[in-house]
Amino acid sequence: MFYIGVDLGGTNIVVGLVDEKGNIIEKVQKPTCRERGIRRISDDIIRLCMSIIEKYNLDDMNLVGIGIGAPGTIDRKKGRIVYSNNIAVRDFDIVSYIRRKLGNLGKRILIEVANDADCAALGEVKAGRAKGYNSAIVITLGTGVGSGIVIDGRLFSGCQPGGGELGHQIIVKDGKPCTCGNKGCFEVYGSALGFTNMAREIAEKYPDSIMNKMVKGNLDKMNAKVPFDAAKQGDEVAVKLLDQYITYLAIGLNNIINAFKPEIILIGGGVSRQKESLIFPLRKKLKNMVFGGKMMTEIQVAALGSEAGIVGAAMLCEN
Amino acid sequence: MFYIGVDLGGTNIVVGLVDEKGNIIEKVQKPTCRERGIRRISDDIIRLCMSIIEKYNLDDMNLVGIGIGAPGTIDRKKGRIVYSNNIAVRDFDIVSYIRRKLGNLGKRILIEVANDADCAALGEVKAGRAKGYNSAIVITLGTGVGSGIVIDGRLFSGCQPGGGELGHQIIVKDGKPCTCGNKGCFEVYGSALGFTNMAREIAEKYPDSIMNKMVKGNLDKMNAKVPFDAAKQGDEVAVKLLDQYITYLAIGLNNIINAFKPEIILIGGGVSRQKESLIFPLRKKLKNMVFGGKMMTEIQVAALGSEAGIVGAAMLCEN
Repeated sequence: MFYIGVDLGGTNIVVGLVDEKGNIIEKVQKPTCRERGIRRISDDIIRLCMSIIEKYNLDDMNLVGIGIGAPGTIDRKKGRIVYSNNIAVRDFDIVSYIRRKLGNLGKRILIEVANDADCAALGEVKAGRAKGYNSAIVITLGTGVGSGIVIDGRLFSGCQPGGGELGHQIIVKDGKPCTCGNKGCFEVYGSALGFTNMAREIAEKYPDSIMNKMVKGNLDKMNAKVPFDAAKQGDEVAVKLLDQYITYLAIGLNNIINAFKPEIILIGGGVSRQKESLIFPLRKKLKNMVFGGKMMTEIQVAALGSEAGIVGAAMLCEN
Repeated sequence: MFYIGVDLGGTNIVVGLVDEKGNIIEKVQKPTCRERGIRRISDDIIRLCMSIIEKYNLDDMNLVGIGIGAPGTIDRKKGRIVYSNNIAVRDFDIVSYIRRKLGNLGKRILIEVANDADCAALGEVKAGRAKGYNSAIVITLGTGVGSGIVIDGRLFSGCQPGGGELGHQIIVKDGKPCTCGNKGCFEVYGSALGFTNMAREIAEKYPDSIMNKMVKGNLDKMNAKVPFDAAKQGDEVAVKLLDQYITYLAIGLNNIINAFKPEIILIGGGVSRQKESLIFPLRKKLKNMVFGGKMMTEIQVAALGSEAGIVGAAMLCEN
């Protein structure tokens, strides 16, 4: 049996054919061109799906269904994108729209939609680093802090649509402003963007730091990799910055662990490419923080990267 | 059909006979005398249960089971108290112990154990203010901040034993020290004890505050009620203090809502006796804070008080 997974992003629509084991057999994609509206975007999703369906002679006998991962607030039960800032949608019944346009095939296969971060988490559980685990939380450190929660092998995105937003927990009362309107959210301090901003500030304050040499004095070139590289070269300013950043991450994860106690937390997104340079000190800090004194949650780097979203979307059809 | 609910506290063991609707028909109790050890305490639990069983002629035909709410970390699946600071236990299989001592009856009825705050939440859902709701979180503001989570009508205490500790989320980085060893936990700022401490500090700083008059200058007499009473009399210091306290509460609840989005949150414990003086401004603050801009979680005061624990413990037998 096969599944089709759709990763609907702000930049690209990526559609993949996925087998039962979670392998991606083929991927096709198109730019989202988000300004043209969700109906025309959905038409392209259908076109991409049909190109795969025709090429592989799929029908309701060998295709279980189509799963879509979309950014924003999704009402999975109702098959609707409730709100998405990223692709400018308000309350669109994407499942019915696609089902109708697929005609007879649409009536015979499953069509599902869920939040993209949730799909990434499900992908990691079904075919990535959290395979074999019953509970997992995937935290993606990018422009923001994304989160996907799997409890008892099933996605949990809150008791009502739009929950599971672990990036918008406040960890610093009266802290830096967040795009959500509050101050001191985990996202402001824990995201790759937040980290890069912190690096820029501290590099400006310490012009002799190796970080400044690495960006040739142009702080616009600062990114989340530079402080890690500078720290490896013994830059004390970078070492201190990393310790600060990892403390913020530890606070956010501490709160998540005390609430959910998942078997494993996976860190994804750009910063996670630093692997053990990030994870090792993070584990060490958390070990002394979590409530009850016994650290029962593994911390690892996510495995699937951007493909987790496609695999997880596909696997919505059996979750 | 009947149920027996046991509320095993640090001070008293209270055992109640509960009917299918969650009404308490009879309550019996004994002091816990926690220093004598969990085996002798369990023997008293059995004696109290037997007194009810004999009085009402209960057997496996009309008694579904016995549910126990105990403080600390509980492994419900294994029927064990893993760790309890409050009654000084480390890893005791209370379910097997009681089952064995009950002889034939023990083999034929259900025996369950869960965390006491979890039982209180379940009690509110089965027979209290959250009756009819599918998801609810009960936050108890006492010496600490207790929490019980019901998702889809069932208790959730983390994916592994000892989760669901929402009082130990850090909301103020580098904040005041908490008994758990971390700094800035919700419990330090949100508990009745934390609030009383804050009231003491501010009253000391402003000796003309009405709060000082109310405790006749003796700050040892400060409690969580005084600032509410002083604020009602127009004491500006108390009004400011209340606003601060409610901001802390709102931050903790905001984080809980963004993660879980329950249909309802109930506030219990001593401070909740202030009812709308507490809940009204809290709701107002939260409305402007929660992620996604739409407040979908009701905030109410808990209904059952200390009886919630007994009813919830009893209802473990069908949850």
